[in-house]
Amino acid sequence: MNETEKEALLQMVIEQFIPFNQMLGIRYVPGNPLLVSIENRPELVGNERRKMLHGGVIATLLDVAGGMAILKNFLDTNDVHSRADMAEKMVRVATIDLRVDYLRPGIGERFTAKAEIIRPGKRVTVTRMELHNEEDVLLALGTGTYAV
Amino acid sequence: MNETEKEALLQMVIEQFIPFNQMLGIRYVPGNPLLVSIENRPELVGNERRKMLHGGVIATLLDVAGGMAILKNFLDTNDVHSRADMAEKMVRVATIDLRVDYLRPGIGERFTAKAEIIRPGKRVTVTRMELHNEEDVLLALGTGTYAV
Amino acid sequence: MNETEKEALLQMVIEQFIPFNQMLGIRYVPGNPLLVSIENRPELVGNERRKMLHGGVIATLLDVAGGMAILKNFLDTNDVHSRADMAEKMVRVATIDLRVDYLRPGIGERFTAKAEIIRPGKRVTVTRMELHNEEDVLLALGTGTYAV
Amino acid sequence: MNETEKEALLQMVIEQFIPFNQMLGIRYVPGNPLLVSIENRPELVGNERRKMLHGGVIATLLDVAGGMAILKNFLDTNDVHSRADMAEKMVRVATIDLRVDYLRPGIGERFTAKAEIIRPGKRVTVTRMELHNEEDVLLALGTGTYAV
Repeated sequence: MNETEKEALLQMVIEQFIPFNQMLGIRYVPGNPLLVSIENRPELVGNERRKMLHGGVIATLLDVAGGMAILKNFLDTNDVHSRADMAEKMVRVATIDLRVDYLRPGIGERFTAKAEIIRPGKRVTVTRMELHNEEDVLLALGTGTYAV
Repeated sequence: MNETEKEALLQMVIEQFIPFNQMLGIRYVPGNPLLVSIENRPELVGNERRKMLHGGVIATLLDVAGGMAILKNFLDTNDVHSRADMAEKMVRVATIDLRVDYLRPGIGERFTAKAEIIRPGKRVTVTRMELHNEEDVLLALGTGTYAV
Repeated sequence: MNETEKEALLQMVIEQFIPFNQMLGIRYVPGNPLLVSIENRPELVGNERRKMLHGGVIATLLDVAGGMAILKNFLDTNDVHSRADMAEKMVRVATIDLRVDYLRPGIGERFTAKAEIIRPGKRVTVTRMELHNEEDVLLALGTGTYAV
Repeated sequence: MNETEKEALLQMVIEQFIPFNQMLGIRYVPGNPLLVSIENRPELVGNERRKMLHGGVIATLLDVAGGMAILKNFLDTNDVHSRADMAEKMVRVATIDLRVDYLRPGIGERFTAKAEIIRPGKRVTVTRMELHNEEDVLLALGTGTYAV
């Protein structure tokens, strides 16, 4: 699978295969490390007056980023021949635990989460994630432990 | 404020004041310790075939339960005379960190999160949360640290 | 291996095989769920005036309890024929992540940590731990994720 | 207080005031961000054959680094006139929760933990910590939430 095909596959997984990602409007942003983004809109806020993104949206975005970084790494290091290979891998990746540190109120127009693998493993992989707004202010940090 | 008024207030906060709670369909369940629930539906799943609740929905429900347990405790231990008092308190409660342990796949029709305060404090309160499905299977555990 | 042999093995592992456990004076307490204990003494405190157990001692005790609960479970569910079998298992158990919630100051004469497995798994096991003092006051909670 | 006095004070707090730090041999390393270090020795290991630092020693070192980064920040941003001011501050800093991610086995001769404040606050401060060995291999990450 070449780079273009890999990116198309990751985009499809993130934007079309996962219903809750679609409901929230989570988008894949091509790049390295893996990036996913979301536009702020009235339904996603936790506090109407201050238009702050709900903590659950932040947790979701960080978890999605972590899980997708693992799939991206899988694509980058394995011979994936088909979507079926990828689908099989996907169902095996499961979040074991997630920690979110909320550093600043979730204020902004567009939020981007990035993820990197900090402990690769055959059984367990650990990732760290960061959430920034469109002005590149760091809003939250995450750590995820995944069975792979 | 009597018990009925308190319950009406908590219900309003959980179901009407917080837009993202409304989008997800999070409901208040009167009781002690604090309970919130959600019905499974196609948009909330992370895996279409197995209809598993998305990890982000689980994190959201646990975070909401933790934060609302703090508000409930505030109602139970203070002389809240008005919705304005409550609103003022609400905006001061902020999640500092959240840990979610995903124990089993989020399979079920209806999910209920309960929360209890394990470290009450003037500056910081820590809560533990549990998520069960309608068959009372424990699916996830949470720990939340909140500025109050 | 019968119950007496299992208990002798766990005691040996906890009290003699692990140098840092010895330095701290961590003891095995026969029972179910798994229990380990420690006596307070001047070198273990973090605050001399208040004689509070250092947070690092608490983290250590909770981590030891979690890891040993996994070994105990292994003994209870497998045909362990020899110390060599056990030793082989031991070296494969590794803490991936640990969360400690410090609820109250670590004041007391004797501290006991108990652990239970909340997510058994072939690749990863999650445990929850509690620390009480001799008056049964709950001082800290832990959650550990272990590769097994 | 000038820089030399501040460093002398931090060194005294880390190396002499906290009995458990002394037992382990934790040392202050002047610098910015805050650094603390420990030499490996037989009593500190969790696995005798591989001479791996016990997970509890790692948790301790990361917790000490986080707490001391808060004291250092206090010294840097306040007019501390005396050791009594500092002592008063010290007793108010309490770890609320700590997460440790163990990335690689704790192998090495000398380990250094560094800490930075990622969420400063009047009630709660969050720090992130890293542990490296003498070859600068990253062995563990920590996140600490402290009441201040």
